[in-house]
Order: sequence, then C-alpha cells, then structure tokens
Amino acid sequence: MNQLTQLRGVIPPLVTPLTKAGNIDEKAFRTLIRRMLTIGVNGLFILGSSGEFACLTDDQKTCLVEVAIDEIGNKVPLLVGVGDTSTARVLKNIERLTVPGVSGIVVCPPYFFPLSDRAIEEFYKVIARTSQVPVILYNVPQTTKNWISINTIGRLVELENIVGIKDSSGDMAHFQRLLEVTGEKQSFAVFQGDERVMGLSILAGAAGIVPGLANVDPKLCLELYEYAVQGDVKGTIRLQMQLVELSALYQTASSPVGGLKTALNLMDYCEQWLTHPLDCQRLESEHIGISKILKECGLL
Amino acid sequence: MNQLTQLRGVIPPLVTPLTKAGNIDEKAFRTLIRRMLTIGVNGLFILGSSGEFACLTDDQKTCLVEVAIDEIGNKVPLLVGVGDTSTARVLKNIERLTVPGVSGIVVCPPYFFPLSDRAIEEFYKVIARTSQVPVILYNVPQTTKNWISINTIGRLVELENIVGIKDSSGDMAHFQRLLEVTGEKQSFAVFQGDERVMGLSILAGAAGIVPGLANVDPKLCLELYEYAVQGDVKGTIRLQMQLVELSALYQTASSPVGGLKTALNLMDYCEQWLTHPLDCQRLESEHIGISKILKECGLL
Amino acid sequence: MNQLTQLRGVIPPLVTPLTKAGNIDEKAFRTLIRRMLTIGVNGLFILGSSGEFACLTDDQKTCLVEVAIDEIGNKVPLLVGVGDTSTARVLKNIERLTVPGVSGIVVCPPYFFPLSDRAIEEFYKVIARTSQVPVILYNVPQTTKNWISINTIGRLVELENIVGIKDSSGDMAHFQRLLEVTGEKQSFAVFQGDERVMGLSILAGAAGIVPGLANVDPKLCLELYEYAVQGDVKGTIRLQMQLVELSALYQTASSPVGGLKTALNLMDYCEQWLTHPLDCQRLESEHIGISKILKECGLL
Amino acid sequence: MNQLTQLRGVIPPLVTPLTKAGNIDEKAFRTLIRRMLTIGVNGLFILGSSGEFACLTDDQKTCLVEVAIDEIGNKVPLLVGVGDTSTARVLKNIERLTVPGVSGIVVCPPYFFPLSDRAIEEFYKVIARTSQVPVILYNVPQTTKNWISINTIGRLVELENIVGIKDSSGDMAHFQRLLEVTGEKQSFAVFQGDERVMGLSILAGAAGIVPGLANVDPKLCLELYEYAVQGDVKGTIRLQMQLVELSALYQTASSPVGGLKTALNLMDYCEQWLTHPLDCQRLESEHIGISKILKECGLL
Repeated sequence: MNQLTQLRGVIPPLVTPLTKAGNIDEKAFRTLIRRMLTIGVNGLFILGSSGEFACLTDDQKTCLVEVAIDEIGNKVPLLVGVGDTSTARVLKNIERLTVPGVSGIVVCPPYFFPLSDRAIEEFYKVIARTSQVPVILYNVPQTTKNWISINTIGRLVELENIVGIKDSSGDMAHFQRLLEVTGEKQSFAVFQGDERVMGLSILAGAAGIVPGLANVDPKLCLELYEYAVQGDVKGTIRLQMQLVELSALYQTASSPVGGLKTALNLMDYCEQWLTHPLDCQRLESEHIGISKILKECGLL
Repeated sequence: MNQLTQLRGVIPPLVTPLTKAGNIDEKAFRTLIRRMLTIGVNGLFILGSSGEFACLTDDQKTCLVEVAIDEIGNKVPLLVGVGDTSTARVLKNIERLTVPGVSGIVVCPPYFFPLSDRAIEEFYKVIARTSQVPVILYNVPQTTKNWISINTIGRLVELENIVGIKDSSGDMAHFQRLLEVTGEKQSFAVFQGDERVMGLSILAGAAGIVPGLANVDPKLCLELYEYAVQGDVKGTIRLQMQLVELSALYQTASSPVGGLKTALNLMDYCEQWLTHPLDCQRLESEHIGISKILKECGLL
Repeated sequence: MNQLTQLRGVIPPLVTPLTKAGNIDEKAFRTLIRRMLTIGVNGLFILGSSGEFACLTDDQKTCLVEVAIDEIGNKVPLLVGVGDTSTARVLKNIERLTVPGVSGIVVCPPYFFPLSDRAIEEFYKVIARTSQVPVILYNVPQTTKNWISINTIGRLVELENIVGIKDSSGDMAHFQRLLEVTGEKQSFAVFQGDERVMGLSILAGAAGIVPGLANVDPKLCLELYEYAVQGDVKGTIRLQMQLVELSALYQTASSPVGGLKTALNLMDYCEQWLTHPLDCQRLESEHIGISKILKECGLL
Repeated sequence: MNQLTQLRGVIPPLVTPLTKAGNIDEKAFRTLIRRMLTIGVNGLFILGSSGEFACLTDDQKTCLVEVAIDEIGNKVPLLVGVGDTSTARVLKNIERLTVPGVSGIVVCPPYFFPLSDRAIEEFYKVIARTSQVPVILYNVPQTTKNWISINTIGRLVELENIVGIKDSSGDMAHFQRLLEVTGEKQSFAVFQGDERVMGLSILAGAAGIVPGLANVDPKLCLELYEYAVQGDVKGTIRLQMQLVELSALYQTASSPVGGLKTALNLMDYCEQWLTHPLDCQRLESEHIGISKILKECGLL
C-alpha cells in the first residue's frame, strides 16, 4: 500500500493479448509487460477498458492478474480493474482478483442501469470499506454512461482508502474542477485517461497519465510527462501534438482497442484478436490505415 | 421446444424479489409466479431488465432458474435472460442456466462497448448455433446502447433457432418495420416490451407483449391483449390509456424496476429492495406517489 | 375561422419550389397547389419544415402566402407557418403573413436557445392572445430541440384560440398521451406529422395527418386516411407499409426536404434546388436511389 | 480592416441590455461599452450568443451596431455577429449591419437544419467572398447543433478574408487540433469562448479569449490573459479557478445569458430583462444565488 501513496507518472493500461481462439496469449502479455518495465513506466494497469475487462471471463481475469504479478514483482505498482454491473458483482471480482502483489484496484461505476449521484457515492463507500488495497475511482462515461460528479468526488476524497482517480471523460473543464476539489488531500492522485489532453492536464496539476497509446509508444508518453512536469509549455504542446497524431489510430480502427491491437500486431508485439464479437467489426482497411500512421510517427 | 413454436400472448418479465440483505427472497418469488399462473399468463420471462439480470451474481441467477422451473413445470413456457458483455460470457451463462425446463433464452446484444451491425449479427449467429433451446432476440437500446438494426434482424430471422424478438425501444416506426421484415416466417414471434404502445403493437400484428407492469396488474395486460387481438380498436385504446396511467409509477420512482418493486411492496407481494447500489437512489417520496397511482388504478 | 373548427383529414405541408438562383419558382408552386386541390386534400400547410420556412427571406415568405391565397381561395383551409427564434420575431412574422385568406397559423416553439416548459407556455399565450386567426401548435423537437410537453399542452388546450397541434416527434407513447390530454376539447385537432406512424395515429384517434410525402404521393395518403378512419386495421397497416416504403427517400437523400424535391424533380413537378447551403450537401447518388424508390412505388 | 490582422487579447461578447418592454436600453448599453473601454479590453463583440443575437429583431440589431460604433469609434476593433438560418438570411444581415466602423463579422453556421461539412464549407466560401470586412468563424455547437469540423477549418483557413475563429465548444482536444491546423497562417487568430478552459487555451497558443463573464468581471479576464501569455502556468491556473468560481452563475441561472444579466443587474449596470420568452424561465431564486456568488468573488 505504501507504493500508492506516491502514485504518479505514466501508468499504461495494458491491452489483453488474445489468440485467434480467444484465449489469453500469456507469452505476448509477458512481453508487453517487460517492454513497459524496461522503458521505465511508473506503474501498470491491467483489466481497464484497453484491456477489454468487461468482456473477459472470470478465469481469464484471474489468469491475467497472476501473470502480471509474476512478471512485475515489486518493480512498479500494479493496478487492477474490478468494475462490474453491481456492488455484489464488484465485490466478487475484488475477492477473486485482489491477491498479494496487487497494489490497488481501479473501479468504474456500475454500468447497465443509470445511477444517481447518491447511488454512486454509496457504491464507492462500500467498496472503500471492503477493499484491502487502495481504491482508485475511474470515470469513463463513454462506456458506463454514469458520471462520477464533482460533488460525489468531493465527498469520496475524504475516505482514506480512496487514493486517486482516473478521468477519461476528456472534458478539461471537469478535469480542472476535479483537481481543485481534490487538491487539499496531498496523497490523492488525479490521472488523465484521454490522450488528447494529457499535456494540458499535467500542466494543470495532474499527478499522471494513463494512456492507452503507451501500449504502442511508451517513450513518447514518458517524454511528454517529463516536459509537462518541468513546466515546459511549448515542448509539452509539441509532444502532445505528436500524441494526437498517433491517436488517429483510434478513429482509423472500428474500435479504440482494435486500433491498439492492430498497431501492436504491425509492430510484432502480439496478435490482433479482440474478444468476440468486438473482433467481428474490424475493417479490412484497418491495417493499411494504421500502418500509415505508425510510419508517419516513426514507429514502423 | 415445441411450446415456443406457438409463443404468443402476455409474457410477464418477472421482478426478482430480494431481502434487505440482498439475497433472493425465494418465497416471494414463488408467490409472484403462482399469482401469474393463476391469472392465466401465456408464459413467464425471468432474468430480464425488470429482473435486474445484469446486477445479480451467477449463483443468484442459477437459483432463480431452479425455483422458476420448480414452480412452473410444464404449465407455460419459461424464458430465461442470458445477456452479458461478450460472446464468451453469454455462452457461460447459457451453459449454467439452460437446464431442462427452460423453454427458450432471451438475449440482448452485448453491452459496454459500442458494436457494429456486423458484430451484433455474428454474435447472434454463434449464440443460435450453440444454444440447445430456441433464441429470442432482445432489443433494449436504453441500457445496452446497441440497437439490433432492421437489416440485422432481416438476416437473423432466417436462422431456424431464432424464434422471436422482444423490442423495448418504444419506437413504433421501428416496430412496424420489424413486423414487416419478419412477417414471412410464421413461427417467428414479435413482442412489444414498452407498455405505452402495447395496444397499437398488437393491432399492428405483434404476437404478444412482455409488460413489466404485468408484475403489478396482470389482468389489465391480459384484457388489453384480448381486445387488441379481437381488433376492437376503441376498447384497446381505452385499456391502453389505463396502462399508461399505471405506467406513471415508472416516472414516480427513481428507477423503473424500483417503481415495480415499490408497487408490489405496497400490494404486499414482496419487499421493495433492489440490488445495490440501485437501491440507494430510492426517493423517500416514492411510496406516497406510487400509493396514489395504485389507488387511482383501483389496485390498492 | 369557421373552417378550422372542423380541421381534419390530410393536410400536405408543401415544399417551396426554387430556381437555381434561389428564387421562388412561382409557376411550379402553383402547379403543386393545383395538383393537391384536384386530388382532394383537406387543407394545405405552407412554410412548414418541408417548406424550408426557417431558411427563406421575409420577402420570399410574403410571396408564398400571396400566391397560395390566390390559388386556393376558399377551396380548403390554408395554414401558414410563422415560427422563429423569439416571441418578437414570431409576432413580426404574424404581422406580415396573416393576411385575409389565411385560415390559421402553425407555430413551433422558438429555436436556438433551450427553453423551459414555462417559457414555452408563456410564448404560446402571447401568440394566442395576439393572433387574429386560430393557432396550431407544432411540436418538432428534431429541429427546434424544444419539446412542447404534455403538461404544457394540457394547459394550452384551454385557450380558445389554440385549435390544434401537429406533432412530428414520431413518439407514439407521447402522441397517445397528447390525444388523451386534449380529448375533451372537441374542436381541438391532433395531427400526426411523422409519416411512419400515421396509420396507427388515426386509428388511435388523431384528426388527421400532415405528411411531407403527400407532396410526392397525395393519393396514397388520402387512401391511408380513409382506411384508418373506417377502422380497417389490416388495410391501414398495409397502406402504412407502402408509405414506409416511400419514406425511404428521406434516408436516401442527404436531407429530408432534399429527398422530397429530388422526387418531385424526377416526376417533373419542380426543380430540385434547396435553399443555400442545404443544397450543397446533395449527394450525386441521390437521383439514382430515389428514382429506384419511386419506380418500386409505382410513381415513375 | 488593418486592425483585425493583429486581433488578440480579451474581446468581451457584450450582453444586450433591455427594458422591461423588451426594447434596447441604449443608455445602459453605452455604459457597458464605456466600462469595457476604460478597463482596457482589446476589442468588443456585439450580437453574439451573450447578446441574444438570434432573438432580436432586425431593427434592434441595426440600433445596437449604430450605438456601438458611436461609442467605440476607432478605439478598439468592433466585431458584429451576423449568424442566421441560411446563406440568404446571413447575407441580408451583412448588408444591413456591416456599416463603416465595423471591423469584422462573426459568423456561426446556419442553425435549424442539420448541415454536412460540405454545406458548411460552401456557406463560408460565399460569406468570405461577399463580405467587405474580415470574417471570423464561430463554432458554437450547443445552440447551432452544427460543428465546424477540423477538416473544414483546414480548408477555410486558406481564404484570405477569413481571419480567425471563436470556438465555444469547450472541447480542448478539438481546440488543440484547431490551433495546429491553423498554425501556419500567422494572421489567423484562434479565440476560446468557453470560460472554463481559457487559461489552458492561451497556454496552448490561442490568440485570445471571448469571455461572456467579462461583462461581469473584465479585470479578472484581462489578468488571466496576461498571466497565460507570460507563460506563468501556476498563476494562470489560479486565476482560471477564480473564473470557474464566477462561472457558477451560469448554472445558478435558468439560462447563461440570464445569469450574466442578473449579475449586471445586481451590480447596477443594467436591468435583468431578457428577450421573450427566454425571460419567462427566470427562477425566483436566481438573484439570491447569484448575489452570493458575486460576493464570494468580491464583486458585490
């Protein structure tokens, strides 16, 4: 738990390499982790949206956690996504996945039914009370359709076991209020999850970034983080624009995770397969478009 | 399977009675089922949206199926919801829940990630190929955010094992095209899941209705169905307006299922508890408002 | 004003024929009107959405009203759209356009700024108080983004000078409540503006329909209305499906009005030009697609 | 026209003071302008969204332009909004409003009908070709519902007569791409119109800001601009948070412009009246809430 009191920097949300049959490609997963550790990331996040957490089976999730712990050891903090559709189901995930070696859990609001602010707050209170490891909030309204509001965050920040938030809304007005409302709790870490506004977020005071694109170009993400932390505004904007250029692979693919996996496939890190049926919407033209982007970004 | 070739009429989607601790209230569940059978519904659907399927644990789902089979026997067809977030997870649900006594499964498109038409089609092809019992499509874009398009339905209707659809979009333009595109397959049954347009739907040719409000007033639903099937337009509209009046309980509560359970609680059929954290958004004023509606509808 | 106390039936919302230079094509406009009168429509509506009212200049609007009065005389009621962005601007339109020969005005809520229920109600009260001719409400949330709520309608229906509503939301649950809440005022006429649900709307009790597609096939619309008024459910559904088939021209074109004008152009009733810049988004493929639809519908 | 080649800094979008009867309050308007000039703003923008441009009559618009020219003279550039629902109507506005003394026009895409990228591009080409004064694009999708896309801007930036853009989308990912795609044209000025992200926007390279809140606190806006231009990140964020605090008046009121006018009313600069029916949705509690915000911000 000590590790998380100083959580900051670049924490890639790892993709989940799969075989054509839909099984975990353990070898490729280990390779991805090692690459990140070698390059010097500040932590790793598995079972996030980029990891297709919602689509994996319980056994697959357990397998990923075990392999990640085995590869990472104590080198960097390991964060694990445990989001689900109700408190009971999230608690089951926590029970199964929070094994020794896991530094913290990342928890999005329950999805499927629309939830009120109060329901979301009560949800997190139960999670915070129950979890043995620190809890990081995860606001990703694009998929959960349930925002964690500023007021809710303002109340949750007072719980000791809630140590940070990853915000992927992409809304900078919201993000700045988030920084302000959590600013007094020094141990609380605010992370930006939308690659397109990461530079500005660190300039504005974010503790770090969780860029899906770090799967593809971790060096660029680390460099961007460094420039921004140093307060080099022009350098930050310049590197941010490079990251924006690379982020075109999200639009080029038929799904964001599909774009990441196609890129990693072209770079020989893993195969391209996604969980079914997400995999079925891959466009034939994706490889050509993403190959072009990678070349323009000097990655191929 | 024979039963489903003639699936029609009123098929209530049962709520899942819970205790305050969040456990299945088996006794209340049995009472609800018996009430429906006594009144003469044409089938029963468990683990739908009204049944909070997405929020229950795997064990709770298994328990509900077992109890339902035990109560229903061969009296009416039993439909079971098996929807989830990916093909693999739906197949696991089918494996666990499709036991002898289950007449058919109801399957919504995977939720969480946005899916293309093609992905949704491929998903249903795998399900139809794998399932031992007939498959009913379930279009509920309010929660899944993934529409089953008319074109997709037009192709899926040709699979023998896909025998019907429940459409809860509430969009009558869509619903009529649905009736048209599936009209040639006589064994295919189209069900309306939005109470506010059930009368018109049966007039337009729907095989039946799946009204959440049947948990509260099954007689009204059966009567509405009869009038519409007889082609009595004025009588249908009149009863429809009564159903609309009752449907005010959805808006009066902080969630639709919460409205059903509060009504059933007031009528002494079960307690009001919902899965956590949905339960936390209940308004203090709900009981008063819903009590008023039930009285106006002659149910209290 | 007497005419409007019995407003019912089929009231086509006329398109505004333009020359390539963007001027009113008076001759074509007269031809369209005469065609409608010959076929036997029950009224005519100019300066609606199909008439591109929002995009025309003040002079063009005046011109259209004058020509329409000249052609129609007292043969059928003439309704004129006067919607705009504020009360003051609507009142200016009323002043300019409500000349002798105009039977009633059709008024959508002000567009541009989001408006509350109360603002919309106050708006209509001012209009009803000021207008010399009867007022028809016009709910078209697709473009105005401001719904006229059921509660608001329930209050406005009590104003003598408000004699009807055209609802183009396409939402049948809303439409039925609309019929119910206005049902006691016998002189109040509820019109359906969404072609895809016109049959059901008349069956449910609507006074009439305002189909943009009547510009293209007025006979089909009149026939559909007759069947539905007679209570012939099966015949109504059959003709509704023909109208749905024809409505495909809306999706085939890059804008609904563009689809109507392309069809009319292919049928030699007027040129295809739309107001600028709406005209610029026309697809090259539109003529081919719409020609195909018209042939399948026996109109070409 | 020379003035606009160096357009930068703080350009307040002035509200339009009205009397209770809905007429222009010329005296209050002159007071507002003089206050802005005294404090040292870099330009003034009338007939924007904060000026309720869409709701005013043609005569009122003409009056405002005349008064503004009379007060401003050559002291600072005067920008005038000419947006409307079609090309023809915008051209009429330009004809009426672009009199000597007007430095440039601000043009949003036509509202009411959804427009394609190509239609929006063609619209601006006609405007740029016709206008005697420089043209500033105005992206305000909240009300027009029509985005000016990055691709469209990339093409329009090449037209000499298009000299800048005001972006009020609040989307910083979009805003940064906007800066990048227009970066090579030195004379092109990018303005941020959403107060909540103005500090970050100037840091990222924006030429200036167009803050509705400058009506209320122009000094804070000028100070924020200065800090950001100097590259003082911490000072910028601090002042930004003060502006965010003040921006709470938007949510406290029932409409953003209503919030501005209530604040100005409390500060004795003008009366609170809005155009009808926007004025009717004012909440009784507004004055109390906004008074509290102004006091907390040291403005009352």
